[in-house]
Amino acid sequence: MLLKRLREEVLEANLELVRAGLVLYTFGNASGVDREQGLVVIKPSGVDYDVLKPEDMVVTDLNGKIVEGTLRPSSDMDTHTLLYREFEGIGAVVHTHSEFATSFAQAGMGIPAFGTTHADYFHGPVPVTAPLSDAAIEGRYVHETGRAIVARFDGATGEPAIDPMAVPACLVAGHAPFVWGKTAAEAAHNAVVLEAVAKMAYRTLTLKASAAEVSQALLDRHYLRKHGAKATYGQG
Amino acid sequence: MLLKRLREEVLEANLELVRAGLVLYTFGNASGVDREQGLVVIKPSGVDYDVLKPEDMVVTDLNGKIVEGTLRPSSDMDTHTLLYREFEGIGAVVHTHSEFATSFAQAGMGIPAFGTTHADYFHGPVPVTAPLSDAAIEGRYVHETGRAIVARFDGATGEPAIDPMAVPACLVAGHAPFVWGKTAAEAAHNAVVLEAVAKMAYRTLTLKASAAEVSQALLDRHYLRKHGAKATYGQG
Amino acid sequence: MLLKRLREEVLEANLELVRAGLVLYTFGNASGVDREQGLVVIKPSGVDYDVLKPEDMVVTDLNGKIVEGTLRPSSDMDTHTLLYREFEGIGAVVHTHSEFATSFAQAGMGIPAFGTTHADYFHGPVPVTAPLSDAAIEGRYVHETGRAIVARFDGATGEPAIDPMAVPACLVAGHAPFVWGKTAAEAAHNAVVLEAVAKMAYRTLTLKASAAEVSQALLDRHYLRKHGAKATYGQG
Amino acid sequence: MLLKRLREEVLEANLELVRAGLVLYTFGNASGVDREQGLVVIKPSGVDYDVLKPEDMVVTDLNGKIVEGTLRPSSDMDTHTLLYREFEGIGAVVHTHSEFATSFAQAGMGIPAFGTTHADYFHGPVPVTAPLSDAAIEGRYVHETGRAIVARFDGATGEPAIDPMAVPACLVAGHAPFVWGKTAAEAAHNAVVLEAVAKMAYRTLTLKASAAEVSQALLDRHYLRKHGAKATYGQG
Repeated sequence: MLLKRLREEVLEANLELVRAGLVLYTFGNASGVDREQGLVVIKPSGVDYDVLKPEDMVVTDLNGKIVEGTLRPSSDMDTHTLLYREFEGIGAVVHTHSEFATSFAQAGMGIPAFGTTHADYFHGPVPVTAPLSDAAIEGRYVHETGRAIVARFDGATGEPAIDPMAVPACLVAGHAPFVWGKTAAEAAHNAVVLEAVAKMAYRTLTLKASAAEVSQALLDRHYLRKHGAKATYGQG
Repeated sequence: MLLKRLREEVLEANLELVRAGLVLYTFGNASGVDREQGLVVIKPSGVDYDVLKPEDMVVTDLNGKIVEGTLRPSSDMDTHTLLYREFEGIGAVVHTHSEFATSFAQAGMGIPAFGTTHADYFHGPVPVTAPLSDAAIEGRYVHETGRAIVARFDGATGEPAIDPMAVPACLVAGHAPFVWGKTAAEAAHNAVVLEAVAKMAYRTLTLKASAAEVSQALLDRHYLRKHGAKATYGQG
Repeated sequence: MLLKRLREEVLEANLELVRAGLVLYTFGNASGVDREQGLVVIKPSGVDYDVLKPEDMVVTDLNGKIVEGTLRPSSDMDTHTLLYREFEGIGAVVHTHSEFATSFAQAGMGIPAFGTTHADYFHGPVPVTAPLSDAAIEGRYVHETGRAIVARFDGATGEPAIDPMAVPACLVAGHAPFVWGKTAAEAAHNAVVLEAVAKMAYRTLTLKASAAEVSQALLDRHYLRKHGAKATYGQG
Repeated sequence: MLLKRLREEVLEANLELVRAGLVLYTFGNASGVDREQGLVVIKPSGVDYDVLKPEDMVVTDLNGKIVEGTLRPSSDMDTHTLLYREFEGIGAVVHTHSEFATSFAQAGMGIPAFGTTHADYFHGPVPVTAPLSDAAIEGRYVHETGRAIVARFDGATGEPAIDPMAVPACLVAGHAPFVWGKTAAEAAHNAVVLEAVAKMAYRTLTLKASAAEVSQALLDRHYLRKHGAKATYGQG
């Protein structure tokens, strides 16, 4: 069996989404990539979480061609593989319909950086994609979903480019969040924090529609406290 | 004992509503129909869920005449049986006062199709009935509740007709949702998803009162991904 | 030990408030009355729920004079005893700071009858008292709290009188709800339903500020379905 | 090992924050001070709560110099120690990113005293600091966070001074709450109540933007019922 360790990590990330209350029934999926071998491990489609085992995971190449596994991969696979091809630094992708992040996606709104909880994880607002065109939806829809994410980060939409390693999440308009990280555990952790941040941003905005984002100085201070060479948080 | 299997399925659907947090105390009820025998299995009225057994279920004909059972059937029975008579493709009906769906019903608002979670299950907005007239309330009220639902789907209200197999739920104005499905498990599943969808629609609207529904293309893409001959979701 | 059975019922009502998530720490209290003996059983003040025993309950007369018990009674006792003296049909009183009902009390708003869940239990809007005057607060404050409730029901405030047996709850402005019933179990049950009804009314109003109450016909139909000589709900 | 008892109390306070749902992952921290020895016991940075032991706690002096312990102290330590130096009556400090209190902090709003739940614990509105300047953020940021809190209480901001013993909490703008008490247990208890109070204030404001605070008389009555020489609540 290929990639035993990565299968376990991806399974564990999927289960963390369940424990944190981010998924209902079989919604949601997580995957991880082995960059050396160019292989992706992804959750199968529509299988109950409580019976999911490492050997149920599907292994594909970076174009989604199945290399090992008898189950059908997650229906969102083409978004995952596109993100692996385009965002070279990431090691795992998580997709959920978590309630508050999805509500922002449905409103077509990004999540402003209202506080230090946000800044500890996301070095700027969490963006939202443009709505997909009918042609994109009727064509290679899942692939086009990934393209809409990439377009939002590389500046193709006309908005300023964003570093996907500094803002490891994107809301897909009318759909839900995609989140990533260096490892499967980190991607799942980021997805859980994104939901907490979305929840507090929702309440901030409904308390005060004109609420201001934190200053660039505060955003930098908190983000860099937890990331990069000068990080001071934790025991690392 | 008639319909042993269906009794178990209906009991299990009732319990799924409890597990998913959709019912308080003895609120809520589920039923199922055996089309060949023309018999309905329905939860008894006001019995605690934790003592409910398959043999407590009440069996009636399609007009609500008790065929087997010593307990009084759910007080909402006449709505269930009317739906079975009018919507030929359905196999089960669920009624809850789940919090968010009921809040939309109380506001007299349908649930707009704001995202793909909605589109995966409901091929269009979830409608709300017109308020019942005093005459209807003072007459055969429970039957009239069913009639208000049917009128909303068959176009009698002047609004466009809706296919009950494509939108398996309706909010009764000032009351709460009725949800259905091909099986008792599917009806309960749809009721749980309806509540999740209502919750996210509530937050979408309170974030942005002018939020737009998803495009017809996206609605089609997601609904047909999970339903019909070309479904690609899951392992089926 | 006096009133063994009533002590157990009052304890059980207190614990039901905890199980239903209506109280935080030692907040909240329930009491019951024995009309024949003219004695009240009430929770002691500030004791942890998980160590509370029937023998810890305090027994007083209808004026709050301790008849049996070594612990200090609930600090809200004078409100309970006043309600027993003024509302002759009630057998138990419950007080909580449950989140949504308290939010309405803090906003100085009653809870409109927006739906059938409300109508099943409360035969009209749940009223809110006038704010207490400084003199009342600085005088016999807890007693005055009860007087503000009674004034709201007997029409002394200039608003239409309300039958306390038909609307078994009142919000005290800037404070929280008091709820009652024929038995301790019923009072606790009513308090739990009040919170559910308040939660849905909150969401109804934040969805649609102009939401309309249900018609008198619907209010009557649902209230009388569960109460009075012609009740049809349950197995009774 | 120094301060065995205080280590246990501080650990227990940290765990109470977890039990009450106030912290996600390793967010949040509690500390306590031994005034006689001039020593502070504080949670280490970024350690999982479920493996935290009394011996993991870090002991520092009132300037944050480590006296005993091998782990790095909480990254918020300089705020804790400043509060101990400036607020002489306090014995413990708690910091969380609890959802509702943080939402007020993100909106730059204090928490108005809308009801008696608030008044039982906080003898006036819970204030919010001014936003920190870029210079403060880029300088001794964590220390400056403490200074912003102190400035809000001692009147340096131009607003009326507040007694930190009567209002044992402050929201840091764009960040989250700091809460204190005479003991670690009391500080944690206050943090839990603050979150409940923030939640109800949020709902009060979203129900009625013009909601009024309680009168000074009611604020006094409830606060003094639980605090000071004339307290009547509980069995004390």
